[in-house]
Amino acid sequence: MAKAIKPTILVVNDDGITAPGIKALIEVMQEIGQVIVVAPDSPQSGMGHAITIGKPLRLDKVDLYEGVEMYKCSGTPVDCVKLAVNVVFQGKKPDLCVSGINHGLNNSINVLYSGTMSAAVEGAIESIPSIGFSLDDFTLEADFSATKKYIRQIAEQVLNHGLPQATLLNVNFPNTKDIKGIKICRQANAKWAEEFDERLDPHKRKYYWLTGVFQVNDQGEDTDVWALEHQYASVVPVQFDMTAHHAMSFLNSWKFND
Amino acid sequence: MAKAIKPTILVVNDDGITAPGIKALIEVMQEIGQVIVVAPDSPQSGMGHAITIGKPLRLDKVDLYEGVEMYKCSGTPVDCVKLAVNVVFQGKKPDLCVSGINHGLNNSINVLYSGTMSAAVEGAIESIPSIGFSLDDFTLEADFSATKKYIRQIAEQVLNHGLPQATLLNVNFPNTKDIKGIKICRQANAKWAEEFDERLDPHKRKYYWLTGVFQVNDQGEDTDVWALEHQYASVVPVQFDMTAHHAMSFLNSWKFND
Repeated sequence: MAKAIKPTILVVNDDGITAPGIKALIEVMQEIGQVIVVAPDSPQSGMGHAITIGKPLRLDKVDLYEGVEMYKCSGTPVDCVKLAVNVVFQGKKPDLCVSGINHGLNNSINVLYSGTMSAAVEGAIESIPSIGFSLDDFTLEADFSATKKYIRQIAEQVLNHGLPQATLLNVNFPNTKDIKGIKICRQANAKWAEEFDERLDPHKRKYYWLTGVFQVNDQGEDTDVWALEHQYASVVPVQFDMTAHHAMSFLNSWKFND
Repeated sequence: MAKAIKPTILVVNDDGITAPGIKALIEVMQEIGQVIVVAPDSPQSGMGHAITIGKPLRLDKVDLYEGVEMYKCSGTPVDCVKLAVNVVFQGKKPDLCVSGINHGLNNSINVLYSGTMSAAVEGAIESIPSIGFSLDDFTLEADFSATKKYIRQIAEQVLNHGLPQATLLNVNFPNTKDIKGIKICRQANAKWAEEFDERLDPHKRKYYWLTGVFQVNDQGEDTDVWALEHQYASVVPVQFDMTAHHAMSFLNSWKFND
């Protein structure tokens, strides 16, 4: 009997290649496939879909975990995916792209700000089945153990069934040992209400720290916010056609002069 | 007769506060409202929806153009909008947020990578009617003169009619003196095919420049790519609910074990 060929799995993140979250994700992916890691050499949280245009990129092999081919990249999470596809895989695409596990939630509107999710979006743009994983714990001491069986199941389902074209998954976990199960959700309507912390530097010049409060404007029980509040893992299918199709007829009613 | 109160207009960009494109946009906006500029102190192209988390932000008043209140910001285009709303406007929102005019197109998938468009998205998240403007010319010598009458009309329409909730506009102009008119479009299905330019530094270490070719996989005549190719200005309504609603039932058919 021929030995089954293991799927190739690209692992990326935004917290940097030494983060505990990516180590946990690598461990799960090693159970089901051949893992190649391309991750930022420094933390890239909040980098969204940024790419590096004005300066060159470094990509260097590193040897952190036994039996895992790993590269650190000087760029953003999206740069990592682009370099992985073009330089590391040389156009031969991986069977799966997983991003995370992020230290901190990427539910709701955070999908826009998150480097973790933007890396997964970039994987999907490259027609690779892609998933972003995040846990509701910002600390370096975050405990990812309860998430692992769900991550494995979700990754296996994606490998078995594929995903609809131009669609990826945004998976978020509550910070509990007792995850109740998985809910397929929509992105909740929520936003950050910023509160800039204004300070003076030693030279008496002002500077600002960005802080904020997460505001949920959505009572729905079909949202990722609801699922996480009720101790479920939330799975949101994500697409990257930003067109507001529902607004077309309204705009077409406007009159413009030549 | 009471004097009509002019609308307040926040102007932002991603090419930096000294770019010719933002000067052109300021000139148009001064015709219709009271302009306040908050723009990056350095070029921020390709920054997408990045925000600055790990370091503080600077925001300093500058005096570049007569009669215009202007601030330069050390952060990303999205940071600029957040600081504008919270520190400059102190929660009293502007009537309109315009971003650009970008030196280079932001049509199709570029809406994800573009700092110009992400600033407009952030404006919309803040419930401010928002528009991003871009011209198909990357150079500093770009000629924005033909775009001005369209920019004014589109801005006035948005001020008069408003926009549907959580919707903004992505406006792109062809690089021609003879713009044929305005087309309401959807985002074309296209992507960048990367071609990394591998080089050796003086110490014989490899580095990479990100380059690429824009690949359009869309024959539709209702897209922004089609409109621009045919010398029309493209107007795409944009929304930021990334949920792939069409994929819900497929995902709900998956079986997970407890």
